[in-house]
This record gives sequence, C-alpha cells and structure tokens, in this order.
Amino acid sequence: MKNTYGNSVSITIFGESHGSAIGCVLDGLAPGIPVDENFIKEKLSLRRPSGGISTARREPDEFIIHSGVYEGKTTGTPICILIPNTDTKSRDYSSNLNKARPGHADYTAFMKYHGFEDTRGGGHFSGRITAALVAAGAICYSALLFKGIKIGTHIKFIAGVEDRDFQNLDADISSLQNKEFAVLSDTVAKEMIEKIMEAAREKDSVGGILETVVTGVPSGVGEPWFDTVEGRLSYALFSIPALKGVGFGEGFGLAKMKGSEANDEYYIDNGDIKTSTNNNGGILGGITNGMPITFKCVIKPTPSIGKVQKTVNYISNEETDIEVVGRHDPCIVQRARAVVDAVTAITLCDLLSERFSTDWLGEE
Amino acid sequence: MKNTYGNSVSITIFGESHGSAIGCVLDGLAPGIPVDENFIKEKLSLRRPSGGISTARREPDEFIIHSGVYEGKTTGTPICILIPNTDTKSRDYSSNLNKARPGHADYTAFMKYHGFEDTRGGGHFSGRITAALVAAGAICYSALLFKGIKIGTHIKFIAGVEDRDFQNLDADISSLQNKEFAVLSDTVAKEMIEKIMEAAREKDSVGGILETVVTGVPSGVGEPWFDTVEGRLSYALFSIPALKGVGFGEGFGLAKMKGSEANDEYYIDNGDIKTSTNNNGGILGGITNGMPITFKCVIKPTPSIGKVQKTVNYISNEETDIEVVGRHDPCIVQRARAVVDAVTAITLCDLLSERFSTDWLGEE
Amino acid sequence: MKNTYGNSVSITIFGESHGSAIGCVLDGLAPGIPVDENFIKEKLSLRRPSGGISTARREPDEFIIHSGVYEGKTTGTPICILIPNTDTKSRDYSSNLNKARPGHADYTAFMKYHGFEDTRGGGHFSGRITAALVAAGAICYSALLFKGIKIGTHIKFIAGVEDRDFQNLDADISSLQNKEFAVLSDTVAKEMIEKIMEAAREKDSVGGILETVVTGVPSGVGEPWFDTVEGRLSYALFSIPALKGVGFGEGFGLAKMKGSEANDEYYIDNGDIKTSTNNNGGILGGITNGMPITFKCVIKPTPSIGKVQKTVNYISNEETDIEVVGRHDPCIVQRARAVVDAVTAITLCDLLSERFSTDWLGEE
Amino acid sequence: MKNTYGNSVSITIFGESHGSAIGCVLDGLAPGIPVDENFIKEKLSLRRPSGGISTARREPDEFIIHSGVYEGKTTGTPICILIPNTDTKSRDYSSNLNKARPGHADYTAFMKYHGFEDTRGGGHFSGRITAALVAAGAICYSALLFKGIKIGTHIKFIAGVEDRDFQNLDADISSLQNKEFAVLSDTVAKEMIEKIMEAAREKDSVGGILETVVTGVPSGVGEPWFDTVEGRLSYALFSIPALKGVGFGEGFGLAKMKGSEANDEYYIDNGDIKTSTNNNGGILGGITNGMPITFKCVIKPTPSIGKVQKTVNYISNEETDIEVVGRHDPCIVQRARAVVDAVTAITLCDLLSERFSTDWLGEE
Repeated sequence: MKNTYGNSVSITIFGESHGSAIGCVLDGLAPGIPVDENFIKEKLSLRRPSGGISTARREPDEFIIHSGVYEGKTTGTPICILIPNTDTKSRDYSSNLNKARPGHADYTAFMKYHGFEDTRGGGHFSGRITAALVAAGAICYSALLFKGIKIGTHIKFIAGVEDRDFQNLDADISSLQNKEFAVLSDTVAKEMIEKIMEAAREKDSVGGILETVVTGVPSGVGEPWFDTVEGRLSYALFSIPALKGVGFGEGFGLAKMKGSEANDEYYIDNGDIKTSTNNNGGILGGITNGMPITFKCVIKPTPSIGKVQKTVNYISNEETDIEVVGRHDPCIVQRARAVVDAVTAITLCDLLSERFSTDWLGEE
Repeated sequence: MKNTYGNSVSITIFGESHGSAIGCVLDGLAPGIPVDENFIKEKLSLRRPSGGISTARREPDEFIIHSGVYEGKTTGTPICILIPNTDTKSRDYSSNLNKARPGHADYTAFMKYHGFEDTRGGGHFSGRITAALVAAGAICYSALLFKGIKIGTHIKFIAGVEDRDFQNLDADISSLQNKEFAVLSDTVAKEMIEKIMEAAREKDSVGGILETVVTGVPSGVGEPWFDTVEGRLSYALFSIPALKGVGFGEGFGLAKMKGSEANDEYYIDNGDIKTSTNNNGGILGGITNGMPITFKCVIKPTPSIGKVQKTVNYISNEETDIEVVGRHDPCIVQRARAVVDAVTAITLCDLLSERFSTDWLGEE
Repeated sequence: MKNTYGNSVSITIFGESHGSAIGCVLDGLAPGIPVDENFIKEKLSLRRPSGGISTARREPDEFIIHSGVYEGKTTGTPICILIPNTDTKSRDYSSNLNKARPGHADYTAFMKYHGFEDTRGGGHFSGRITAALVAAGAICYSALLFKGIKIGTHIKFIAGVEDRDFQNLDADISSLQNKEFAVLSDTVAKEMIEKIMEAAREKDSVGGILETVVTGVPSGVGEPWFDTVEGRLSYALFSIPALKGVGFGEGFGLAKMKGSEANDEYYIDNGDIKTSTNNNGGILGGITNGMPITFKCVIKPTPSIGKVQKTVNYISNEETDIEVVGRHDPCIVQRARAVVDAVTAITLCDLLSERFSTDWLGEE
Repeated sequence: MKNTYGNSVSITIFGESHGSAIGCVLDGLAPGIPVDENFIKEKLSLRRPSGGISTARREPDEFIIHSGVYEGKTTGTPICILIPNTDTKSRDYSSNLNKARPGHADYTAFMKYHGFEDTRGGGHFSGRITAALVAAGAICYSALLFKGIKIGTHIKFIAGVEDRDFQNLDADISSLQNKEFAVLSDTVAKEMIEKIMEAAREKDSVGGILETVVTGVPSGVGEPWFDTVEGRLSYALFSIPALKGVGFGEGFGLAKMKGSEANDEYYIDNGDIKTSTNNNGGILGGITNGMPITFKCVIKPTPSIGKVQKTVNYISNEETDIEVVGRHDPCIVQRARAVVDAVTAITLCDLLSERFSTDWLGEE
C-alpha cells in the first residue's frame, strides 16, 4: 500500500499543499483512549514554522476530528483528522515551471505521475503533509503515555554544534516536551540558532541530527527477521521528508567500537534485568530488551535555498538555472523533530497492539 | 507478517541453526527468468566463513530448489530453497545455559518465546539463516542483471581503516562480484584483515561499514510516503543480524553539509537528465531519479567474544559471568556484505515488479 | 489492517452514522484518469433510499474531494472523499438503550468496543458508510470504463420473484446503469416492489439475490492460491452489511450439476479463445479466462423491523423485548446493488493495477 | 502477496505436483503449542484419495517438519513442513499437450505464466498442494482445541442426496473427526457413494455442498469492514480448488426468509447471552457473537472426466477434442472437507492471534 502503513494500528495520509485540505485516517487504536484536542494542538505547534528561524507559511493548523472519537475517547473505529489548507495564496510559479528544484522531488514526481501531479507548493510531497502525521502521532502518544511509555527527541547536532547527551531520562524528556527548539542545553540552542541564521543570510541552509529516546516499552516486542523494531521504525521514519539516515543505539558509531565495548553487559537492578550500557538502543535481535529504545536520524539541509542553482527543465529537456524564491526555512531539523516523535508513537502503538492485543493500549 | 516480507515479490524464511534445515520461499518473481545454480553457489560462498578470518562453522551450504523452477527458468510460482544443516554437532552448552550473551538476542528471545525457543546455536536468530536470504537474493539478482541492473557492495570501513570511494562504477562493481573480502583497494584489504586478526588475538571483535551502489534502476520507482525506496530497503536491511544503521547517499554526512553542497544539481548528459553529484543516493522524495542508488550500513562488532563478560541468568534472575566459547568470527562485516547484496536484490525486485507489472522482470 | 483493503489500489473508510462526516481515502489509482463528479453523484443516487420503498433517512450525499484530483483528473496520489452527515437529528434512543437489536451488530460491537463505540444510528456499522464505498467505486469504475471494462448488477431474486437471466450483455448492462430498481424485466420489478410493500405493511422485511456480470477483464489476472479473483472479490463483498453469501458462475447451483455439464468447453471465436458456457464465472484456478466474471450475492432481509422481538440488555444481562422504531427499509437489496458494483470496481482496479503496473489503468 | 496469507498467523505454500516436494511455512503461531505428528497424519489421511471412490494417485504424504517445532512444541518461529512427491511417475502427456482441459486452469495458467509453468500433473494448481494446507491446518487445529475451539465439517449434499442438519453439536463434531466420508447419517453416506460410483461409471463426476460448524470462538472477533470474519474466511476458502461459493449461516437461504424469521432473537442461558436461532452463522456486523460459526461451501464437480469434450489448443489456437485419461476422482467433495477444516483452522488462529495477542493461542 502506498499511503497507508501499519498492521494493527495503521495510518493513511492524504492531501496536497495547495488543495482544500490535508489529513489522515488513524485506525486500529484500542477503544477508550482519552483524546485531548489541546494536546494535539500543542504537538502541531511544535511542527509549525517558528518565528525567528522559519520564514515559511504560517497557518493555524486547525483540525477537525470527523470520526472515531466519541465523548472524548477513542471508539476503536477509524479516526479521520482533517486539516484544511487556508494559506494557499496563489503565487506566480511560471518562472520556475517544469524546472526541477535540486534536492526536491519535482523531477521524480514527474517521472512517477507523468505530469498529472498537483505541483503547487510541492503537492503531495510537501512537508505540510507531516502535520497529519503529527496530529495522529499526538493521539498515539496519549495512548503510550497512558501505558507509561514516553518519547523524547532532541536536536543532537546542527552545523557543527552539538547538544549534550541524554542524562536523566525522565527530566530530559520532560524538559523537551514543549520546547519549540528542542535542545537539552540552552547555550547550545543559542549557538545553533546563530548558525542557522547565518546560513539564512547566505541564502543557504543547514541540516542536522535528531536523537530520540523511548522509555517504558516492555521487552519481547518485535521479530527477529523483517519485522524487527529497527526495520519497522526506520521504514516509517524514512517517510519524513529530508530524513536520509537512521542509526539505532550507537548507530554508525558502532563501526569504531570493539565487541567488548559495544556489547551491553547485563545486571540485576532491583529484580529487573538491565544492561549497564545501551549501545544497542534497547533492541537485540530485532526485539526490545526493556531498556530505552534510542536512535538517531539525520535530516539533510533544506533543499529550498535562495542561491542560484543549475538544473534542467524536465519537459523541454534543456539545461537552465533556478532561483527558488519565496518562503523557505534555512533549517527544518527543529520542525522534523515533532514528526519523528509522531512517527515513533504511531509505530510503537502498532507494534504493541500487534503483540499484546488490539485492546491492550486502552486497558488500565 | 513475521517472517515474510515483500508485496509483489516476497520472501518467507524459516529455520533454526541446529534444526534439520533452514530455507526460504521466494514468491512472485516473473516467469521465464533463468536460474543458474552455480551463480547461487558463488553467492553463498561469499557469505560463508572464510579461512584466515573466520573460525566459525564450515558447511557446504548445499541447497535444493524444491519448486518454482522448471527447465532452468522460473515458472512464476513460489520457489522453495532448502538448505540442510549438516554441521550441527552437539556441543555442551550447559555451562552457559540460560545466561544471556551480551549483544546477542538470548534474553530478548526468551522474553518473546517464553523458553520454548530452540536456543541451540542461536536458533532462529542465527546468522546462518541469512544463507537463505543469500540464495534467494542470487535468484533475484539474476533477474535484475537480466534488466541491466547491477549491485556492488564494498567494505568501506573496518577498525579505523577506510577503503577508497567508488570511482568507475562499472569496473568497481565488476571487481567486487567474487571477492571474498570485498574491498576496492587491495592494500586497504590487507590492513583491515590485520586489524581483524589483532582483535581476534585479543579475544575481541570489530565492526565496520558497508557501502552499496545500485546502477540501472529506472526513475519513478517508490512512493513519497511510507513506501519510499529508503523505507523499503532499510526495513529489509535491518533484518541482517548486527546491522544497526542505514544512511542513503551521504547519509549522516549530510548533517555537516549546507544546502548548496547537498543539493544535487541537474544537467543533461546525452539527452538524459542526470545530477552532477549524488548526495541524495539516487532517491528524492522517496522515488528513484535514475542516478545510482547508494547507501551505507553499519555492522556492529560480532557480539560473540572470548573475553569474560558480566551478565545474568534470566531464569534464576541472578548476576553471573559468561565466557562465550567455541567458534566465532572476530568480524562479520565481510560476510554481511553478501547478505546486504541479497536483501537489496530482493527488495528491488519487489519494488520494480510492483511498479511495472508482475511480468516485467521476465520480459526482454 | 482494519478499515483499509487493497494492495496496489486501496481504500480506507471512516465515519459514524451520526458523526460530522463519513468518507474514504482511495489510493493507488494511476494518474490521468478523468474524474467526473456528476458520475459519482449518479452512483450515489442509486444507493440512496428511494421513494416508495425506502422510509430511511434522506440526505443529499454531497461530497467533497479534498485531494488526489487536479484539473479533473487523478493525480496518482490519495483521493480523500468526505461526505458530511447532515440528517443526524437527535432522536430519543433511551427506550432501546443497551438492547441488542436482533440481526444487528449492537451486541457484537459492544463485545469488540467495550461500550466506547458511538452507537447512535448504528455508528460505524451503519449502512451509511457504504456511501463512501460507492463514491470511491464510481471513480474506479471510470477507470475501468476507460479500459473497456463494464460492470452490471441486477436484482435476481426478491421474495419468491425472479428476474430473467442476462442475455445480451452489452444491452443489459447499459439498461441497468441508472435504474433505481435494477431489474432486467420491468414486469418482474413491479412484482418485487409489491412484495416489498407487503412486507412493509406487515412491519417485516425481505432479502434477495443480486447477480453481477463484468465484461472486458483480460485473462491471466489472479493467483492460484489465496489471491484468487474469487477470494479477493468475496473478501471485499462481505464488507457489505447484510451480505451473507457469494457464489461465482453457477455458484451453489454447481452442486447439482455433473462434470460434463459444469465444465465450460472451449472454442475459437474469431481467433479468440472462448467458452461456450460460463458456469465457472470467468475464473478458473483463481485466474480470469477472459470470459465475463459473474457472481451472485445474497442479501439478508433488513434486520430493522417494526415487529416486537425478543432480545437482551447486554449491560444488565437481562431478557427483554424490543420494538425497532423509526425509519427503516423493508428491503435493501436494490440499494446494496450500488455497493456491490462499487466494491467490484475497486477490487478489479486493485487486481489489474497489481498485475499490469501502477500506470496501466491510466494508459490509453 | 501471492502464496502467503494471514496477518498474525500466516501460511506460505509452494510446490508443483510433479516437482520434488510440496510444502508450506506456517508462521506466527504462539510458542508452546503441542505438535503431534500423528494428529497431522490423521488429518492428511482424510484428504488422501480413498479406496472405492478415488482412483487418483495414492501416496503416503510423508512429511518432514524442518523448523519451528522443538521438543514437541511450537517454538513461535516459522514451521516449515515439507511433503516429498514420490508418486510422480512420468506419463505420456503428449496427446493432450497444450490442450486446455475444460474446467481446469490449463488455459488461465498459460495466460498468467506464459508457458513457463510446470504443467505436469496440474503443476502448482494441483489439488495435491492442499496436502500442505491440511498439514498446517492440523497444527492450527491443535492450537484451537487447546483453547476449546472445535471444527466439524460434513457433506451436506451430493448429487441430490442430502445429509441431516447438525443437531447435537458436540456429538456430531466428534463423530466427524476421523470419518473418511464425513456424513452425519450413515444411510445417506451410502446413497451418496452410490451416486458417485454411478457418475464414475458414466465417465462423469459430481459436486456437492460442505457444511462447517465451529464452536467455542469468543465473541468480539472480526471487524465491521473488510476484515469481517466472513471476508477473511471466504478469502482463504476460495483457495480450495473447485470451491465456487460460500454462504454464512443460512447463506443463500436467507433470500427466501423474512426479517422476522432471519433475525436471531437473543436470550440468556445460564448468564450467557445467546441467540435462539443461528441464521447469521455466529457473525453479525462481521464480528463473532459467541454462537457457533456456520457456513456452507459448494464444490463443483471434478473437472477431470473421461468423456470426450470440445476444447482448443491454446498454442496453435485451433479447436480440438480432449479425452482426459488417467486417474481422477469422480467426486472430491469428501476430500475437500479436510481442506475446508484446515483453512478454517488457519484463518481462525490468525484472527484470534491478531485480536487477543500473539501469545494467546499458547496460553493456558
């Protein structure tokens, strides 16, 4: 299936940047999970362009839940969330018509949809569609919180500036929840923002690395082959525009370690089996071991930049130049973070519901 | 599904390390694709433990194709490949009984299968199961070669030693095909092997990074959300034991680049649209752009090491020590390479068959 | 997945009878297929309660296509169709609260959703949700017509009255397209309506049999096991509320035939291989043979009847009586017909797209 | 996927009639379920051609379980069951080469596999493949029995002769378990066999109707749309060669009933909610209501008959005659029964595991 994923809990997304609405259908969540529209709004606000850094379109992301929620709780039936597009003012795209913006999907979209695609504002490839993922992810995250599972993502790296590692997980995750620019160290955040603004002034952009931690997931979830927790999460994460790599635990850092360093030794903590390090990111043989699930994602620099770039017109098959004008973010790492959280929440609900029954997420 | 993946072309794997056989069912390949058993053998030999480096069990990987191939060609029906286990000599596992080997799936397997799993030799988690992936991958690779699609994977990094980048793709891919230790530079290979032997002497192990390139994949394959080429490939790749991270194109290196560097500019080459760099690894918006697909995978150091490690007995819930005795590889990066090739071939057959019709792979 | 089906072309439905809207997301249709909103309206009007027979709620079934259609054609991205609920006047359900209506899903819904379901007007089980199937089916049917494939369903049997068999397929299918009460013989239609009105006067209801024929489907579509054309169609058809049986070709009539009668003999017609009878309904070994696909579905009598019935209160676990008051149809066979057509169209688009490529349906 | 079905519990089948082996991979069953090879043998013997009626090939159906079972219990990993083909004596097929046997899949197989298929003995379309379903079904049935769920199928109708209805379900199901010719009334069985032998003497064949009942399935299993219990069962049942129709509860008989007759009224039986009739076959709104699941399947007359039939050569595109010589059954209804039981068991394990957790089937 193309715009649907998930087995027990699934999501279907739809919409174009300049169509009448975008949205999603979230299906399979257990009945009885509290749905708080304010919580969804908070999560959506973390994805929205932020003052200072973002110059992108600003819209309220008002949403309507058309189904699947009754008297403030999930019914167990599909939840349709519709997010109308309001800020779709017609612009003059004619100067860049049929020119492939480098780093964007214009050309690949054309090769797939043969010119029938709605190209305005990126169409179905627009980062705007991720608002639907974030809204659905917020509902899934409510379900996880209900079961004591918490997710926290911080910006680990932007433009040569690095955030500190997670230390006290509970406190760190709490501190990240409503931070618009999710860095653990406030000094580091300031430095990163300076680097971003510098790139903006140069009509350029920067990328970065997000680090995610999930606490409270029971052990024994996942499969040894194919349906590994890593495979399921990464499959979903690669939907996030600009995300180009995923590493679990120490990820690519494992290449430099020896077995004696990389192996996480076990010990007993108050009767519970734990590991003293967590280089494997809470997953061994594709299955959770009860330790926090950790992974890093790389977000490439925003492809929309003001600098003149070489490109082609894919209709006339001629070389040409392009200057991507209009609103664009010099960095989307801070916004992608809300989407990583959301996709993680959706995928975990799916894995847990599949493993422990379709009612499990709603059970006290 | 648990041990099955793929939509149009799919694979189901089965088997335990010390059971009577392992194997797979490869389904959905177009009819009429030539199947050469020698080609399969060659690929299997690349995955097998190699003299000098590997100390692991040596078996011939004889296989039987029970169905789906008739008169040397695929029939279009499921292909069952059975690989009998012959070298399963009973060993005395009693000293390490119910002790979780650090870095291994013993404990997570127990939490999933509740003690009913066949733990001998790693059971269903054994790297041996990947022989089935390699055999199926060889058939899929025949299909791809038939359509002019080529796959090459080299060891990019082991223990501080780095191989050169791909240069002449055709020549480089050719040179890798039957190399047991797949490094582009022979000097580098020698250095890597020295590092591996050094780790072996220390009763330790090392990991590394594999880099893969695929040429000849048409543009317009993949989907913008969920069924991105990155998502589909990474989902499958994470099945490979010890693989903990995947990055496409420049992968995690993109975090350090600016948009003006990371964006791949387009130009016309003899009437064809190409990009002058390939930092996005041939995929934009989840869809192929006709450039080579490139990605890197990190393989963690072999968890089986001779050094004494701290662990727990997960039945008695007590802390203890463990010394993993017996045959184990100080490095499996060179062997994982054959599996990466195989999983890539299987996934691409699936994506192409889904996109261009179930007959496409068999059509001249 | 729960409210999504299809592999290459898929549909996700959502909504409750008395929520703000119902709808669906139709995904995977090839780009470039003309979408005519009037054609969708016509199909929706065939599903709507009709004067004379139906007493059920009358609403306009206005719909909004929020995505996936641009400049009158499919873009290849997901099509969200939203149908707002307008006629959801609050009624006093208190007298029948927690009483299981016999033949309805009230009790099974409670056992599945544990009381969190929106029970108003049947909630997510309401026949109203089929409007979303019909709208999506109309778009799929446009795609099929574009490829020369036609679907016709007539009421074969209601309350002892039987329609004639299909004769001239082209003419018969044409005559059925916009008939509100789809019977081939007008005399028979009149008799059936009389029987229905008689049942209505008795506060009772009747069921019946629908017969469907599809012409123009190429041979070689379907699979021998599991993904048989029969299996795929029946899976989808059983979604239709009140549909309790499906038979292909002569269906249950085959039990009374001998092999020499049931076997369809082949002959050559103008160079084309055809069969002189079509007792197998155009499908052999799960795969189409190029003859018309034919099947019959049985629709049970509307469970909502005015007569007093014995039942239980599933909360208090006590026996009680129930009188289902309010608007209900004495027969829904004539309305189910539009849904059978729709589900058939969606499933065929899926099968054809899977077989012949994701672009095929849009190719001239 | 083509030869794989199921979500939580899945099965993949493979093999050709005259290849080296057929078999299947059964995946997703909970760990800890006892596997008794004798029980599997018993079930296989019910599918095997029986003396007196069948003239078809007689082979022992010896099977090897290569994986997923350890110390007599399921491990939770995929179970590969291999059934070698031994009775594949080469015959002279040349006289009927490329002639489409009426009622068989020869022509549709050719249109799908383009002549690459292994046509010997029906190839992958052979009824022999159902032995793999029966073996897997036996293991699934063990799991169901462990949870108190029982399945019984009897021959309801053959050639004008009708068996009595189910009466005492427990006793009736027990009496059917090991009956080779599964009819409730022994007198009726004798009459049916006479009719079959009569058809055999006429070089003809007969079909019939099977009726299945499943007791002990909990309520609340299934989904209102798409993943209805009816849809899931029928999808799988249509894999059975010659099966052309499925009806749940009263099935096609519902067309003749009024709502007041068809509706199953509820009552309280010792604290449990039950219905006094079961015309809906234990399923309402696609979901189980705790009453026995009942359905009927129609099996068409064996297409292989000795009589001369008209047909075509699909290579030369010429009309011709065909006389299907060799061993064939005048009736396969009695053998199909074992397959119906098996497919039902597999599908129910899937539905239950999906609903109640992947461990549920193995839990005491």
